[in-house]
Parts: sequence; structure tokens; C-alpha cells
Amino acid sequence: MARTAAALVIGNEVLSGKIQDTNSHDLARLLRSVGVELRRIVTVPDEPAAIVAALDALRASVDLVFTSGGIGPTHDDVTIDSVALALGRCTARHPTLEAALRAHYAERCSADHLRMATVVEGTVLHHGEDGAAPWPVMQVENVFVLPGIPQLFRAQLDLIRHVVRDPDRSFVLACVLCRGDEPSLKAPLDEAVRAFADVSIGSYPRWFDRDEDGYSVKITFDGADRTRVNAAAEAFARAVEDRVVRVELA
Amino acid sequence: MARTAAALVIGNEVLSGKIQDTNSHDLARLLRSVGVELRRIVTVPDEPAAIVAALDALRASVDLVFTSGGIGPTHDDVTIDSVALALGRCTARHPTLEAALRAHYAERCSADHLRMATVVEGTVLHHGEDGAAPWPVMQVENVFVLPGIPQLFRAQLDLIRHVVRDPDRSFVLACVLCRGDEPSLKAPLDEAVRAFADVSIGSYPRWFDRDEDGYSVKITFDGADRTRVNAAAEAFARAVEDRVVRVELA
Repeated sequence: MARTAAALVIGNEVLSGKIQDTNSHDLARLLRSVGVELRRIVTVPDEPAAIVAALDALRASVDLVFTSGGIGPTHDDVTIDSVALALGRCTARHPTLEAALRAHYAERCSADHLRMATVVEGTVLHHGEDGAAPWPVMQVENVFVLPGIPQLFRAQLDLIRHVVRDPDRSFVLACVLCRGDEPSLKAPLDEAVRAFADVSIGSYPRWFDRDEDGYSVKITFDGADRTRVNAAAEAFARAVEDRVVRVELA
Repeated sequence: MARTAAALVIGNEVLSGKIQDTNSHDLARLLRSVGVELRRIVTVPDEPAAIVAALDALRASVDLVFTSGGIGPTHDDVTIDSVALALGRCTARHPTLEAALRAHYAERCSADHLRMATVVEGTVLHHGEDGAAPWPVMQVENVFVLPGIPQLFRAQLDLIRHVVRDPDRSFVLACVLCRGDEPSLKAPLDEAVRAFADVSIGSYPRWFDRDEDGYSVKITFDGADRTRVNAAAEAFARAVEDRVVRVELA
């Protein structure tokens, strides 16, 4: 069984449409590349009750949870307290983070700055393999706590790639690009789904820009076994031979 | 109380990182503009059990649910059946949709094409105010069922703007753009949060591109009452006068 994961995006700014969340997409791509199956993405407001309820539900159903957002120093940053509440743990000031903040802010460093050194008790810090990260990733139990700012989020993902990676799995993808409408591909698709139960098959019609490279439906095949993924794509392509624009094997 | 809503994004392609979901962001913006409060965005795989569980939870906690994706004719399109299951209803072929499909596909129209005319029993179709939509929006009880293809999703949102609109509310936004680091703004921010409980206040530091227009933290003020929103922004701007780059009133 693949290791499973969920993303918990914390942010009124996403729900109110002020910003488009891109962190969950970056996380989805990272997890896919390291063989971890992302099962849920949940976005909640900056409210402890909502965060705790979502964390409880997600932790009960997946192996790893990644939170995004709400870890700054201001009133709307309630993630650390909420994770502590969900895990039944206290919070504490982390000496490594405190030292980093004091070094960075020097004489301007106030109690408000030091709020950013508050962690859930039992938190492990991941500094990355070369230790050169601007800020470490916090992990407590199976929860990774990441910042909401997209550039920082991405930088932190890089730090934990080797931590979350499933050494026994990675996913590959093959595609068959077809002409014609999607319903007319249904019968051969159903046949492929039946014959290759271990391959995940998706069908994505294009409704616009069809003429750019001449296909109107993309059929995707993915899974952990390259041989089976390619066999599924090839079998499907043979079945709809007259409509195939291009086959992209894994 | 504002009318509340949730988005349910259905799609393995989002969870596997193949595509970035933009539909929930478009929905968030639309809902905000018509005075409806988006409380959750949940992304689940193309699996009936996951969709039904999410629908049950969301319908219990908000007024309106908007689904995105999984309504085409292929094996991975399980949204209609899942909504039916969650609502304890049967599915049926809708005569209006059947007629539209037969007109569009003419002699090529097969049983597979007609799968797209299947709806949950009791579904109401929204054709928009001018009736010129390429495809109507399906609504059953408090669930709006929309397609996953972004261009179609957006086109369908336009059709239901007048349906979901809360006639008594709409939201306005003011911003104060500041120099300096976020922790140093905490005390005046806390004061504004206390004094303007009816205004939602957010703080968003920029970590990159700070020099472009000279601010490093954006403080947002939003709510239903323009006078209060602007009063909050102005009071905060006065309190941090020396650090204000720009005030944008609602």
C-alpha cells in the first residue's frame, strides 16, 4: 500500500478569493514524484475550531498531513495553537528558532517577533540535507507545519522531500492523445479499465484550443509499475488506432 | 447571518498534481462578490465513497454546496451517481438535456453520449437569464453540480450568479500597505481587531519582490459594511502612520 497524505490549507484569504492557493498543487506534485498518494485537500478558515476538526478527520484517514499557512506572528496566525489542541499537546518556545530570530532581528527582536519561535511540544525541525534552509520545517507526530507564503512553502517542500519519500514506490504516467469526442471512446476505455485494474486511467476532454496540436481528448494512464502503465496505454492506443494523434509512453 | 457555501472539487487529476485546480478560486471570487461566505474547499478523488462522505459533511455545515468535475460520459465520471447516493435519490434521463445532445450529435448520438443527460431525480436546470448558455447548471436540493473543465465551469458560474446572490449582503475590501516587518505591526493590528470585531482583518507579509512598489506587509480589512471597513482601515493607518505606503479604501 502506498503511503497516503492530505493537505490542510489554512487561510481566509483563499476562501474569500483574494488569492489563489498554489501550495496544494506544489505539494501534490512533490508527493506524486516521491510515491505518496495525496487523498484530500481541505481548505478551512483561520479558526481554531475549523482547523482542529479538519486535522482530527484527516489524521484519522491518512498517514501524513501537511498544513499550509497561519504560522506568522499576527492575530490571524492560529495554526500552531490549533495543531497543539488537536494533538493534545502544549506549545513551547523552541531554542533553535529563538536563537535564529534573535540573530536575525538583533536589537529589534521583541516578544512579538519571538512568537514565531513557538512550536507544538515534541516538534522535530527538518533543516534539509545541506542545512542551508532559511527556516526549518516543523513536524510533530504525522503533521508537517508549513508556511502559507508560496515561495517559502516551496522552499520548505524541498527540505522534506527525502523525509516523506516512499523508498519502494514512485509513479509513472503515459498518455494517449486522441481525436474525436469523448463518448465515442467510452467502450475501449471501459475495456482498458477492466484489463488494467492496477493502472489508474483518466479521460480529459479539451473543449477549447483543440486545433493547437490536433487532439481533443487526453487519456492518461498512471501507476507504480512502468511496464503495466505502458502496456495499458499501448493496448488502448491499438483499440482506437484511427483516432490516435500521439502516444506518450512513461 | 451570511449565507454559507462549500466547494467540493472531484478529481484525481488535481490530487495527483497533473492539473492545478482553478475552479475553486473562481467560485470563491464569485461567492464573495454576491455576499455568500465560502467556508470550505474540499478536494476528493473520483470515488463514490469519498464524494458521498464529503457531501454529507459539507451539506450538514453550510447552506450551498458546489461540486466541480466528474460529470462527463466516461468511467471516471461518478459525480451524478454519488450525489444521488448522498441525497437518497434515483437518477433519470432529463428530457431537455437528451434533446440537446441528440440535436448536437445527430446521427452519431449513442447511449454513451446520452449518459450526459443523466441527472439526479428532482434536478432543476438553470439556463441563465438570457438562456444562451451552452449547457445549463444542474441543481438538486442545495447542491449545484458543475463541470470540471475550467472554461465551462466559469461559464456556468455566470449562469447562477443571480440564483446564489444574497440580496441583502455584499462584501467590500480595504487595504493598508506598509513598510517594516510584520511582528512590529502586531500591537496596532491587535488594537484594530479589538475595536472592529465586525471587520475581518488579515495580515500578509511579502517575502519577495518587496521593492516593486515599496511595501512589505499588506493589511486587509473586509466585511459587509463599507463605513466600518473604511473606518477600520483608516484607524489602523493612523496608528502606523510612519510606515504606511498606501491606503486603498473600499
